[in-house]
Amino acid sequence: MNTRPLFIPVILGTVRKGRASENVAKFVFSEVQKHEGVETELVDIRDLNFPVDDAGEQIKNIAFSETCERADGFVIVTPEYNHGYPGMLKHVLDSNLKEYIHKAVGVCGVSAGGFGGTRVIESLLPVFRELGLVTIFWDGNFSGAQKLFAADGKILDEATHAKRIDKFLGELIWMSKVLRYGRENVSI
Amino acid sequence: MNTRPLFIPVILGTVRKGRASENVAKFVFSEVQKHEGVETELVDIRDLNFPVDDAGEQIKNIAFSETCERADGFVIVTPEYNHGYPGMLKHVLDSNLKEYIHKAVGVCGVSAGGFGGTRVIESLLPVFRELGLVTIFWDGNFSGAQKLFAADGKILDEATHAKRIDKFLGELIWMSKVLRYGRENVSI
Amino acid sequence: MNTRPLFIPVILGTVRKGRASENVAKFVFSEVQKHEGVETELVDIRDLNFPVDDAGEQIKNIAFSETCERADGFVIVTPEYNHGYPGMLKHVLDSNLKEYIHKAVGVCGVSAGGFGGTRVIESLLPVFRELGLVTIFWDGNFSGAQKLFAADGKILDEATHAKRIDKFLGELIWMSKVLRYGRENVSI
Amino acid sequence: MNTRPLFIPVILGTVRKGRASENVAKFVFSEVQKHEGVETELVDIRDLNFPVDDAGEQIKNIAFSETCERADGFVIVTPEYNHGYPGMLKHVLDSNLKEYIHKAVGVCGVSAGGFGGTRVIESLLPVFRELGLVTIFWDGNFSGAQKLFAADGKILDEATHAKRIDKFLGELIWMSKVLRYGRENVSI
Repeated sequence: MNTRPLFIPVILGTVRKGRASENVAKFVFSEVQKHEGVETELVDIRDLNFPVDDAGEQIKNIAFSETCERADGFVIVTPEYNHGYPGMLKHVLDSNLKEYIHKAVGVCGVSAGGFGGTRVIESLLPVFRELGLVTIFWDGNFSGAQKLFAADGKILDEATHAKRIDKFLGELIWMSKVLRYGRENVSI
Repeated sequence: MNTRPLFIPVILGTVRKGRASENVAKFVFSEVQKHEGVETELVDIRDLNFPVDDAGEQIKNIAFSETCERADGFVIVTPEYNHGYPGMLKHVLDSNLKEYIHKAVGVCGVSAGGFGGTRVIESLLPVFRELGLVTIFWDGNFSGAQKLFAADGKILDEATHAKRIDKFLGELIWMSKVLRYGRENVSI
Repeated sequence: MNTRPLFIPVILGTVRKGRASENVAKFVFSEVQKHEGVETELVDIRDLNFPVDDAGEQIKNIAFSETCERADGFVIVTPEYNHGYPGMLKHVLDSNLKEYIHKAVGVCGVSAGGFGGTRVIESLLPVFRELGLVTIFWDGNFSGAQKLFAADGKILDEATHAKRIDKFLGELIWMSKVLRYGRENVSI
Repeated sequence: MNTRPLFIPVILGTVRKGRASENVAKFVFSEVQKHEGVETELVDIRDLNFPVDDAGEQIKNIAFSETCERADGFVIVTPEYNHGYPGMLKHVLDSNLKEYIHKAVGVCGVSAGGFGGTRVIESLLPVFRELGLVTIFWDGNFSGAQKLFAADGKILDEATHAKRIDKFLGELIWMSKVLRYGRENVSI
């Protein structure tokens, strides 16, 4: 089996000013970095400057597409806006197709209220499936996200959250590894 | 009962170049215009120039918010992108909240393939509900949308499509009227 | 406007032994009874004895269909089983069609875990829409449901829950009233 | 890599009398049988006689649970009832949990109308994910299902349907193989 490190970027999926998801993404990113044999990168969709006068593969951002092409798995950190996904996250995701096929994705849902972004996660399932991604069955759930972090952006109850994210990342790494094996060794 | 005309704008929900949804929106718009007692307007989200460095009510477009405030019902014409809604449509919808409450919405799903945009319609249901909109149970379904129109943008099989949209608009007008009655006469 | 009392039955949507939803349904039922001008009834799907060798309108239970026919609105109390609805609830709901049209429904989601049945609520939206029901945009959410009630079935923190359910019922009653006005006075 | 045959049962997911899904299931079952290295079995949920006075793992049917335990992948053939899944299918699926983990599933949607059961497929995605199943991104879509078969149950346009199901099964076999490799060789 391939022993090359896995590449699992963390995508921060909102451009909203004051987004609590930024702290969540940084926390999850630092947790991914603790895993040996996993390379990562924090991708902030705000920095990608996608055009908004067109949509789909026509507006590919080469650097982002290369990141997706190279990835074995993804963490998507996304707030829940009106029980759905942020428009700009979808706008960005729709710019690739074959780059995602047979790769793993795990979602961290972020919400102001108490339900841990469960609804944005449900809403992404059909999209990820159509893109060829496999959504793992562990989620990150960050309820009341504005209150989870200190002023300097550090998570307050680190032990609890690190433990949960560890379970989530364990599953994501497993699925990323298994699908990479499939892509490299099993023909259709 | 209030006899003021209903106002039901048609929202063209994609910025994509070459969008088949534009012809669909124009066709539906012309059908709405045939209904006495209904005023309408074609709103192309491409013309709204929403900023993309923030999201939500912070980026309200005053003209669009006034249109939504004045509306009794909405037609949303939307393509299906990877089994979900176009990012820019969601980005625009998320800019209002109270403007939508207790109003009706009908969806025209547009797809290149054969399933009439059924999946984008399903994906919008939780969003519309959270926004306070009531999604009617008739849909417009435009399968193989690129082939439904002549080069000049006129629908080819007008009789069939007009008949279907008539059913759809009948239900949308009913729900718009009933909810307006409620907003104006029934206290919570 | 019609001043006949509204009829809003509460449906207990699971047959599972040890169901926490039974206490939730009884609590909500007692709250509905406090509303003047609203008649109600607690319908336990366990008592309906639907056959399971067929499905759909063929297996109509006359008493249940009459209850639905007479209803102006519904409260559905449902646990979340594997992020979806209980099979027996769907089996029962599918036995009617025209009985539901242009009526209101509110959902109380019940979960063992912390997310208040949000996912079963999302999963019911397409079904209710197709049945002609209007799902209101307030929900009842009962997280950790086994711990919310005393041994005798009384809710522990009555004040908090009564206040929340009052908001929910206010909206449900509004929508039931408005749609009844529409059914009785507005032609399609 | 393990060369033991894969086991991929086909589940016929409705008890409704006159179900068109029965012909679909038999057709798909016969296509699966053509694949070397794949064992299969047609499971008709009507034959399972699940009790309906309880729900979940408490009502396990031992033979069915053993089939699920042994399976590497599943084909679910399901009609769309009111834009959702048949109640009895969910009732049956909910009786297992660990039996499904890290296995593949493909869905054949069956509809009377023209949209190929797309909506029942979308509605199953959250359920399958929570059960630990990976839903592949090819579907079987059987629109107008009553008209696709001769009186003797044989599919009319066999060439077209066999070609499509071949693509679907190719993907399902790939995912079943890859996940089996993972279950047997990759630790979490």
